[in-house]
Amino acid sequence: MNCENPNLKSLDEDVLYHLGLSTKTVDFKKHFGDVKFVCTGGSAHRIKDFAHQLAKKAGIHTELPNLASKGGRFAYICVISCSFVFKQHGMGTPSLSILLHELFKLLHYAECTDVTFIRLGTSGGLGVQPGTLVITTEALNTEFKPFYELRILGKTVNRPSYMDQTLVEELYSLAKSLPENMPVIKGKTVCANDFYEEQARLDGAFCSFTEQEKLSYLHEAHKLGVRNFEMECTCFAAQCRMAGIRGE
Amino acid sequence: MNCENPNLKSLDEDVLYHLGLSTKTVDFKKHFGDVKFVCTGGSAHRIKDFAHQLAKKAGIHTELPNLASKGGRFAYICVISCSFVFKQHGMGTPSLSILLHELFKLLHYAECTDVTFIRLGTSGGLGVQPGTLVITTEALNTEFKPFYELRILGKTVNRPSYMDQTLVEELYSLAKSLPENMPVIKGKTVCANDFYEEQARLDGAFCSFTEQEKLSYLHEAHKLGVRNFEMECTCFAAQCRMAGIRGE
Repeated sequence: MNCENPNLKSLDEDVLYHLGLSTKTVDFKKHFGDVKFVCTGGSAHRIKDFAHQLAKKAGIHTELPNLASKGGRFAYICVISCSFVFKQHGMGTPSLSILLHELFKLLHYAECTDVTFIRLGTSGGLGVQPGTLVITTEALNTEFKPFYELRILGKTVNRPSYMDQTLVEELYSLAKSLPENMPVIKGKTVCANDFYEEQARLDGAFCSFTEQEKLSYLHEAHKLGVRNFEMECTCFAAQCRMAGIRGE
Repeated sequence: MNCENPNLKSLDEDVLYHLGLSTKTVDFKKHFGDVKFVCTGGSAHRIKDFAHQLAKKAGIHTELPNLASKGGRFAYICVISCSFVFKQHGMGTPSLSILLHELFKLLHYAECTDVTFIRLGTSGGLGVQPGTLVITTEALNTEFKPFYELRILGKTVNRPSYMDQTLVEELYSLAKSLPENMPVIKGKTVCANDFYEEQARLDGAFCSFTEQEKLSYLHEAHKLGVRNFEMECTCFAAQCRMAGIRGE
């Protein structure tokens, strides 16, 4: 992976504040050195359930301790069989961005290679049957552009938020082959910075647009291939690309 | 308060998804009708400690149940003596924005009047003694402009993020009069959408600027009267203004 901030080399200690882990007190290589997959999700109990289900399928019956409990910010991190890390990141790109910076540094100090990041989450479907699994082919902002926007030292920086298409195909084939036979599609995903107004919902505390304007915006999105809205995908895709990590 | 989304009138049921509360199953007026103060903070255990401390000072020894536990997203909401609500909102404006939309609707359905919102949080101080309490006079974005930016139906909307100056003065006087004699100042606060790069930190997973560029950005901020950086204030100030609520 590509976590090449030269400033890190001169640090005597690196404290991953929000994970509650420090390079002085935790042996990253021992605990995380063999990690190949990192699964993240917004909801603490959902990511915990998922970790437990996967452990059960793998025949692992040990406890799955929360290794980030000292941080008090992110609710759950655990390692199954030295291959998987699971992490809850709260809602929105700012919260996810903090987690990714600290996870990338964690994997860097652990000297991990060939790591794949997968983000799981709920989303608002667009023109799809409820319950459909949407595998994101491209992450768009609410202007339907494939960028994650940051303002670094006050200047706008747009980072491309394309997904790894090989990983998209692998996950799509896997999902199609499941015995559960659930509906699964590939499609573009829009990342909003708000649940109500930025996602064209009419039922927030405020609403400055008509139902007609909402529908016209959503129709435009659908025409462009958008199949769901959520609140993290541009940050996830762009930061994984920056780190040279396969992410989906 | 001013929660005048006309669409709400036609709803048979309004589900405040992230709080896990519904107008069909909860009597908002009974539980929240007398609320005068809402205190929010990013960290669950900190807002819980604060609620317990205030309850103790007020001589209240009953349990403080989490009324939002069904939502599974926000960790803590409780009411002390029918006057205070406390809420944890996670990190960043998207997460806070969801909470504010749902709290404003909650107070609207509870028919509350003269409500004051106060946000408490940690922040990175700028040229101030560690441990100083900064009372925000104006919330700025990372370009040092007093706006909360949203993209509604793909179009940029800048909402003014000025603070209520009477409330600023009230809180400042109160803080100065405390026997603890802690350092307290008034100053502008910058809201970043990221903890590392947008706050000019050199120790994230990525860093594209030099220490000199960082210092020049922070000096500019200090010259403009900025005394701390955090991740929610523009959203908080702008949304409280929109709702006609005193917020600080």
